[in-house]
Amino acid sequence: MIITSVQNTKVKTWCKLHEKKHRENQQKFLVENEHLIQEAFQAGLLEELILLEGFDLNLNFDKERIIVNEHVMTALHPNTYMQKCLGVVRMPKVQANLGNKILLCDDVQDPGNLGTMIRSAYSFGFDSFITSRGSADLYNEKVIRSTQGALFHMNVIRGNLMDFIHKFKQSGYKIYGTALENGKGLSTFANEEKVVLIFGNEGSGIKEDILKECDDRIYIEMSRFESLNVAMACTVCTYWFRKD
Amino acid sequence: MIITSVQNTKVKTWCKLHEKKHRENQQKFLVENEHLIQEAFQAGLLEELILLEGFDLNLNFDKERIIVNEHVMTALHPNTYMQKCLGVVRMPKVQANLGNKILLCDDVQDPGNLGTMIRSAYSFGFDSFITSRGSADLYNEKVIRSTQGALFHMNVIRGNLMDFIHKFKQSGYKIYGTALENGKGLSTFANEEKVVLIFGNEGSGIKEDILKECDDRIYIEMSRFESLNVAMACTVCTYWFRKD
Repeated sequence: MIITSVQNTKVKTWCKLHEKKHRENQQKFLVENEHLIQEAFQAGLLEELILLEGFDLNLNFDKERIIVNEHVMTALHPNTYMQKCLGVVRMPKVQANLGNKILLCDDVQDPGNLGTMIRSAYSFGFDSFITSRGSADLYNEKVIRSTQGALFHMNVIRGNLMDFIHKFKQSGYKIYGTALENGKGLSTFANEEKVVLIFGNEGSGIKEDILKECDDRIYIEMSRFESLNVAMACTVCTYWFRKD
Repeated sequence: MIITSVQNTKVKTWCKLHEKKHRENQQKFLVENEHLIQEAFQAGLLEELILLEGFDLNLNFDKERIIVNEHVMTALHPNTYMQKCLGVVRMPKVQANLGNKILLCDDVQDPGNLGTMIRSAYSFGFDSFITSRGSADLYNEKVIRSTQGALFHMNVIRGNLMDFIHKFKQSGYKIYGTALENGKGLSTFANEEKVVLIFGNEGSGIKEDILKECDDRIYIEMSRFESLNVAMACTVCTYWFRKD
């Protein structure tokens, strides 16, 4: 059976996933390309597979494939070229054990930056990725694309950073914030076993009250230019503090 | 005087700068936002300053400001929101002395990646940035934006990589290519004084004949995921081999 009407109940439910509040209500989000759908499937998070009629995906997915026509696909994924497949993906469960290597984002605004930071953190073995409520939404399309699938495997949490920081302090983590002023060069830091790295907003950096809680401030040594973009800084720092 | 006609000779000449061949003929390119215009000015490369009527820029520029109306500005910079200022910028002269720290791009396609790589290379003190003819155009708008102005200060060259590599070999540079296979971990490399780092195409990496010329292959140690994006890899490597 092919779904051809945008009035179909399922189609209406999926369309809502373009909005953050409905993603949170349903605890699901849409994923748009073949590679990302594969990654979601491998992470055990793929709930429904929606295919444009005439197209298939080489995937050992045991649920029924849902076929839609171009009209419905356009409704499900407007503003871009025609998608051949879409995945409805379950948000990963938060793991209570946050692990030893943790990244905190204090109001990182740009979805591309946030996605790249998740990708870096995952690549270099970080266990949990925690964002403030003022950061870009984790399930924004551009975030998902920039993570290249790392989002499905990383323990991502949205919450109050200060609450987390207080718990980390009691549990013996070293807490380092990146800052342009009063920082110690990154290359002088030892790779601690239990470490929390904090990155701040693109314009204003880490908020003062959070910076005060840091054991040290990290400065990335540069020859010229006053700052790297936050995603580049994160890539360098997560490499330095990587888990081997 | 305000230019109000898109038939104006100057306007026609500037419009051509959206095309690569005309940029090369004129040895000029357009720059679109205030910060980038400031950077071009500071680098001594700003030739003409075009302002939307009613708008000014706090810049100690001693040539006449050119005022245009919305109609002309839209012609000069279509497909986006209305610009308030545009700069006509001279391509920087290539410096014959390439310095000690050099970055080579073998067919890097994505303008955002290329721009980020120039920014990283500049931030970490690299002296020259050389791209193959198959790489994205250096003066593409998105490249310029991603460099955040580093383009105006970096010695950028487009040419035949193999010719350069042969010269570098004769002059005692260490030549390192990034590769997923048969590489040595980045953290095992000493920071050589004279070093050439090579990065390859997003899909296919560095071409085999170029890889053969490398003294060593670099592998960026990761815990998970098989690859970083080339811009992220470049940021980590240029930090590692930075000039202090």
